[in-house]
Amino acid sequence: MKTFITGHKSPDTDSIASSLVMADLEKKLGNTNDIIACRLGNLNKETEYALKHFNIEAPVLIENVSEADEVILVDHNNFAESASDIADAKIVKVIDHHRVSGFETSEPLFYMAQPVGCTCTILYELYKMNNIEIEPVYAGLMLSAIISDSLLFKSPTCTPKDIKVAEDLAKISNTDINTYGLDMLKAGTDLSSYTAEELINIDSKEVSANGYKIQIAQVNTVDIDDVLKNKIDIEKAMNNLISSKGLDLFIFAITDILNCNSKAIVLGDKVSVVEKAFNTTVENNLAFLPGVVSRKKQIIPPISESI
Amino acid sequence: MKTFITGHKSPDTDSIASSLVMADLEKKLGNTNDIIACRLGNLNKETEYALKHFNIEAPVLIENVSEADEVILVDHNNFAESASDIADAKIVKVIDHHRVSGFETSEPLFYMAQPVGCTCTILYELYKMNNIEIEPVYAGLMLSAIISDSLLFKSPTCTPKDIKVAEDLAKISNTDINTYGLDMLKAGTDLSSYTAEELINIDSKEVSANGYKIQIAQVNTVDIDDVLKNKIDIEKAMNNLISSKGLDLFIFAITDILNCNSKAIVLGDKVSVVEKAFNTTVENNLAFLPGVVSRKKQIIPPISESI
Repeated sequence: MKTFITGHKSPDTDSIASSLVMADLEKKLGNTNDIIACRLGNLNKETEYALKHFNIEAPVLIENVSEADEVILVDHNNFAESASDIADAKIVKVIDHHRVSGFETSEPLFYMAQPVGCTCTILYELYKMNNIEIEPVYAGLMLSAIISDSLLFKSPTCTPKDIKVAEDLAKISNTDINTYGLDMLKAGTDLSSYTAEELINIDSKEVSANGYKIQIAQVNTVDIDDVLKNKIDIEKAMNNLISSKGLDLFIFAITDILNCNSKAIVLGDKVSVVEKAFNTTVENNLAFLPGVVSRKKQIIPPISESI
Repeated sequence: MKTFITGHKSPDTDSIASSLVMADLEKKLGNTNDIIACRLGNLNKETEYALKHFNIEAPVLIENVSEADEVILVDHNNFAESASDIADAKIVKVIDHHRVSGFETSEPLFYMAQPVGCTCTILYELYKMNNIEIEPVYAGLMLSAIISDSLLFKSPTCTPKDIKVAEDLAKISNTDINTYGLDMLKAGTDLSSYTAEELINIDSKEVSANGYKIQIAQVNTVDIDDVLKNKIDIEKAMNNLISSKGLDLFIFAITDILNCNSKAIVLGDKVSVVEKAFNTTVENNLAFLPGVVSRKKQIIPPISESI
């Protein structure tokens, strides 16, 4: 029997870390299946940095879950963000920190979600609940995920529980949160090797609202203008995706993780939605979003409401 | 601020007990809102017996959740089984043991589901996780719910965890499981005062499968033939509901809780689905279902598959 554990498409550090950590936890909980930590896409540079730092192999790259007897989802529940054949799989567990949407099972399952900033914060609690000791390497992975999702505790998605858990994980993994955290986040902002097509797919999410198809991609940087040097190529790549997917709106947010602001390239028929949502004007396809760092808390809700 | 806690429509003992128990737990977890245990329908006789035995007031009968600032769902997640306006409510927590279906939120939430026989088994774990002592009256309520959902541990939905938790709850509430359990279950089988219309609504669930609308109601008894004395009136009531709701199939399962068998009155255009699902013949609108006691495990899955 094979148990696949996977995070979402375009995996971020939380999805990758959660998949590896949950595999460890399942084994220690006594699951005797062949347990395989998986991923549905390439590693980003931030995650590569974290895996290298804690010296652990990446999850197995998969395209679907057809070979799995059962599947555990981490860091997502929406089928649209999961393996293409997930609706046919037997999902036995979900550990997540997102809203529930586009998810359904035919059988009862273990589902644990909490409104916290990071899936790994919940995984930490599962270790504690089951009195299982956390090994330093998995503590380091979970800490990396919390730093990543919370932008070193600066994102509005970050809760007091995330911070408390991160502090304990820093002790277990013997990590200096600020030094390691800044190094890891900066590693993730090295966008120099990406083509425009790759750039808009590093962390991209499709959202449906009121019948409209909206793509919201995001990259982190320490220099927004440096990313905007390739604005023409990025716009071309965005327009290609708008045509091929029939999108009504494409928002590409470039987030300055040091100053906690974003600029967004905005294309599609529904650009006015962004102007209304953020009470701003889109000039030359560009909108300035002061204080905005979180897609989940600060972009998706106003866009959904505005549309 | 008001927090409403509610189980599903046509509440059973688990829905009522979970609502009362969760209200106790929320208070002890430090929720300072006005916390109101609610119910979406009349008590059945089994639940009345349990509440009287442990001397506790029933939850407040509500028709909708319009007055609630936030809502906690227990023992269900499907909006079709919840308050009519649940889609507009802010759902902050779900504690449940059913499959996830027909459920969506716009915000992250606390969601705890486990594939166990009873919601109260999960609530017991929440007390333990949070190091909160369980008072005897709430232990008694949770024990009643586990006995009810598991038909005194005889239902295939019952798990080893349910039994273990029930044994601890019996100690805390100083209850003899078998004596009390049989008395409570028998109290629930006194169907003498119900009209045919009421009978088919005591514990009734609408299921959608492959675009078809299927109603599956169930009553427990110690004498199936006694219930069938009113077969003509029951059929009339069922046919009325088929017309008014546009149902494709109505299954009314009469379950003998001592011998663990069921007979079902089956009406609607899709009667053949039942014949296929249980490899049986429906004669005079009646099907014999040997060994069948659980709607969730033994009726809904084969019907869904067959349709």
